[in-house]
Amino acid sequence: MNFTISTQEFLKTLNIANKAFTPRPVNPIYSNFKLEVGENGLDITSSNGELSLITNIPLIKNNVQIIRDVLPGAILVKGDKLTKIITNLIDEEVTFQVLIDNIVEIRTKNSKYTLNCIRADEYMDIDFSLEGTKVTLDSKKFIDAVTQVAFCASQKQTKLALTGINLENNDGNICFTATDGSRLAKTTIEANTKDRFNINVPVKTMVEVARTIFNESEIDMYVGIRRIWFQLDHTLLTSTLIEGDYPRTSNIIPKNFSAKLEVNSQDFLNILNRVSSITDERENIVAITMNEMKVTVSTKASQVGSANEVLTNFKYSGEELTMAFNCDYVSSAIKALKSEDVVLNFVGQMKPFTVSTTNNPEVIQLITPVRIY
Amino acid sequence: MNFTISTQEFLKTLNIANKAFTPRPVNPIYSNFKLEVGENGLDITSSNGELSLITNIPLIKNNVQIIRDVLPGAILVKGDKLTKIITNLIDEEVTFQVLIDNIVEIRTKNSKYTLNCIRADEYMDIDFSLEGTKVTLDSKKFIDAVTQVAFCASQKQTKLALTGINLENNDGNICFTATDGSRLAKTTIEANTKDRFNINVPVKTMVEVARTIFNESEIDMYVGIRRIWFQLDHTLLTSTLIEGDYPRTSNIIPKNFSAKLEVNSQDFLNILNRVSSITDERENIVAITMNEMKVTVSTKASQVGSANEVLTNFKYSGEELTMAFNCDYVSSAIKALKSEDVVLNFVGQMKPFTVSTTNNPEVIQLITPVRIY
Repeated sequence: MNFTISTQEFLKTLNIANKAFTPRPVNPIYSNFKLEVGENGLDITSSNGELSLITNIPLIKNNVQIIRDVLPGAILVKGDKLTKIITNLIDEEVTFQVLIDNIVEIRTKNSKYTLNCIRADEYMDIDFSLEGTKVTLDSKKFIDAVTQVAFCASQKQTKLALTGINLENNDGNICFTATDGSRLAKTTIEANTKDRFNINVPVKTMVEVARTIFNESEIDMYVGIRRIWFQLDHTLLTSTLIEGDYPRTSNIIPKNFSAKLEVNSQDFLNILNRVSSITDERENIVAITMNEMKVTVSTKASQVGSANEVLTNFKYSGEELTMAFNCDYVSSAIKALKSEDVVLNFVGQMKPFTVSTTNNPEVIQLITPVRIY
Repeated sequence: MNFTISTQEFLKTLNIANKAFTPRPVNPIYSNFKLEVGENGLDITSSNGELSLITNIPLIKNNVQIIRDVLPGAILVKGDKLTKIITNLIDEEVTFQVLIDNIVEIRTKNSKYTLNCIRADEYMDIDFSLEGTKVTLDSKKFIDAVTQVAFCASQKQTKLALTGINLENNDGNICFTATDGSRLAKTTIEANTKDRFNINVPVKTMVEVARTIFNESEIDMYVGIRRIWFQLDHTLLTSTLIEGDYPRTSNIIPKNFSAKLEVNSQDFLNILNRVSSITDERENIVAITMNEMKVTVSTKASQVGSANEVLTNFKYSGEELTMAFNCDYVSSAIKALKSEDVVLNFVGQMKPFTVSTTNNPEVIQLITPVRIY
């Protein structure tokens, strides 16, 4: 096995391969990348056991020869070490050659590196066949949807389904939901199929797919029974699905509200940030007291002191209301909405409230309040 | 106690006070700042037990009123909480007022914070009297000297004196030395006194003093028997000294060399960085083989592979020589010299070698090689 490749293109592709890399995987074989070179160029496969991907560099790209002097073959090399060497090289081209005794040599004009390597057939079989329902999605909308919900997925392994993002196709509209039990985020994007599915995708998979999208205006998603695939221009990602039923969330989100607060996002974030100077870091609880004349955000921590901030720029309609909540939850919800203004809608004391925007009504952030100290 | 102060000036001074702050000090009283306001303005005292400082904001600065509505008094408040509140305020002025029951109120137009506080007389007595030998030093030269040697101080508590920087006055030249036993850095700056002293200053003290210097062109250092003081324009820092004899290092540095390698700093750093892709992170050992025709940097790690880099731009005089060393030590030494080119001077196999520059011959970095694998 042998090839000479543009260092920059090699590095770009290694960086994609690293999205499915973990330095200490459960199965140690996954600390390796599989490199396979042939007439279709160079394929790099990587996996962390859950998320796997295969990414390709063609021999010629935009009429420029990227890879030359190919002797076809495949090999496994340590992903982190290979990346580190290629990252630091300054030469334009690098030659990769398998020597005897399972050693690869990586060389440029003045540098020569060797890495121990393993036979390619010792790698695990990864199912890169495309099965199930094919859905074509707008890339930008997919990335936005992932960003708007991913942070709400549960970190705890007690209810596995909640560690993922739920994707449910309702008549051509795919609903993305994530919840950790205390807060929930939900949004919808259109799809080109009405085939029903209701799956839980590991949140890390969704985030890494969103990060891998580069120039693609659309991506193809294939929903199988136990597995999902995402086809990008030069990269195919696949992940196991999380088994288990996702809670029914559609009836949790209130439809009718009795009070409504409109604020400037940045002003409100600044106030939450200031008030949380006083709170306990583990329990970042603040209270908001609202009537049509005055809105104040306050907190009290017996060991430390108290904080009280008056909002100067707001619109409030409804009866006087006091709600206490985890300051981080509201801050994350506002940041995820990426809007100049946000609207908080309340049903009443101790009832979940929503954070949303007028310019993107599909996105709903729902937060459960806490009992006031 | 009462005052209204420019938020920006208050924050600037709190940031200085934080240089002697540690969130979990051995003596919990040091988690507080002492604030004292009177006709000389506001004094903030902070300490971590080893390094202490007092810093002042005058009532009026450059004809601008910084502090107004003063009711003299003193109080202790949690340093981190106070800093966090003031950092996040957006108002131009803030009012600080001690209420009954040992509570301070910090308020602006729309914000009101309270912090629990402690009586000022519960703070430890800190010796801010200036005693001993007074030495006036050029600020820039002081900062450079600290930067050039500090990283060589020992991290281990086994030989306490080595955790400091040794300052020795030899006839009006103060020699700064730091060593951890495997490497040593040394430089000299002029002083306006020939009074002899030979002291060990905690490295953190030296680094924080260097960081606190702002506009001062000169600083005054007072060397006492058990304590040292640094007088800056608005801030006085003091620290205990480290007891114990510092090793005699003057005869360790070789005077006559048998081989000399001149390299471009950045090229050589890049090569060391590339080669260390292969090394074990804990034992970052590389070897250099030099003769007048060829210089190569190489390493081998049985579990990983090997690296071999040929230098393209160098001058070497002397016999063929191979030296192995800790790559981090040489990289840190070169970075500390801040010079376009560096010179490595060798005495022979397994003998300590120096890294230095022609434009600043006062600074010597000495590195002990390691036995080659």
